[in-house]
Amino acid sequence: MSAAPKKNRKKEVRTEELYVCAARLFNQRGFHGTSIHDLAVELGVTKAAIYHYVTDKQELLYQLHKISLRAAEAAAQQATHEGRNGLERLRLLVHYAICDVKTACLTLESEALKPEHREEVYAYRRKLEYVLRALLQDGIKDGSIIPCDPKLATFVLSGAMNWVTQWYRSEGEWSLHQIADNVSAMMARSLSASPVAALPVDISKPPLTPI
Amino acid sequence: MSAAPKKNRKKEVRTEELYVCAARLFNQRGFHGTSIHDLAVELGVTKAAIYHYVTDKQELLYQLHKISLRAAEAAAQQATHEGRNGLERLRLLVHYAICDVKTACLTLESEALKPEHREEVYAYRRKLEYVLRALLQDGIKDGSIIPCDPKLATFVLSGAMNWVTQWYRSEGEWSLHQIADNVSAMMARSLSASPVAALPVDISKPPLTPI
Repeated sequence: MSAAPKKNRKKEVRTEELYVCAARLFNQRGFHGTSIHDLAVELGVTKAAIYHYVTDKQELLYQLHKISLRAAEAAAQQATHEGRNGLERLRLLVHYAICDVKTACLTLESEALKPEHREEVYAYRRKLEYVLRALLQDGIKDGSIIPCDPKLATFVLSGAMNWVTQWYRSEGEWSLHQIADNVSAMMARSLSASPVAALPVDISKPPLTPI
Repeated sequence: MSAAPKKNRKKEVRTEELYVCAARLFNQRGFHGTSIHDLAVELGVTKAAIYHYVTDKQELLYQLHKISLRAAEAAAQQATHEGRNGLERLRLLVHYAICDVKTACLTLESEALKPEHREEVYAYRRKLEYVLRALLQDGIKDGSIIPCDPKLATFVLSGAMNWVTQWYRSEGEWSLHQIADNVSAMMARSLSASPVAALPVDISKPPLTPI
């Protein structure tokens, strides 16, 4: 049976596996449409093995939100550190955020979180939105990004990034790195003061896209 | 009590209201996180009033998916008819699709549909993806859209459009028309052979954005 526990698996591997699997099922079936039993079957472990890491499903959703938000924050920090201007930082932020998409839980159903966790998640999310807006504003100031409404642009960029959780398949034709490279190129082009004249016509082929 | 039935409402108004309300709650709380009772309370009608239109919640989800997909198809047809080249058609398609966002159900949790409906919804969705890809390919051919990978671009455009269901608020500072105008301008710029030099810095102000 596929639901049989695999007791020899390493503990560390299971933690990562648990979050990747939970993010995938929540994104595909919704939080309420996924049970701890479904997760156990998918992972080939007992339900008890999952309860070793989280007290309940709400706790798992909360942990996933925190992982997503921390990854997005780390992406923003790395991008800010490495980019030489606003546009490069924007491009890198989108790139790094997409590279972490395997544990990214699409931020729907936040209402399913416990009230105290919900407030924390909303506040964190707002903070990151402001980081992205500030990055765009800096880019407009330094001339690398065209004048635009940073609030609207932030929503559009979030949509393009978040939607990857819906169509990315680990067994698909494109690697996450290729997807990150090309989505970020397209989004950077939408706001670049000096847009490139073309984008790759077949993204599964190297080389990486110039900004 | 807000849950009291309002028997004097017109039948036609209630149908539209039901779908708009269901789309909003499904998008915010997920399909499984929304009950017919929640909908009845939100609309101020009895549960029986809702069962007058749909046999169950799955049927409601199915109807919403069909409404979304038909609206997207109509948007594509209108855009194809009105646009003078591929880029104009792309811009108009995104614009018209966003104008219909009030009844757009974010296409998650399709697994909650009955198997026969699921296949129908998936096939319809694939068909529309091909329409968008073909539109992009035509735009590349006529020189209005830069060379790119139409499959990847279709995913990115879908993300930007679908995400509006998550952040749009009818009581917010922007009208749907303003949002449609500006998101479409940003997405058209990402693929335009001749990108504009700026986008509106405050989208709540007229005039509309040139392509």
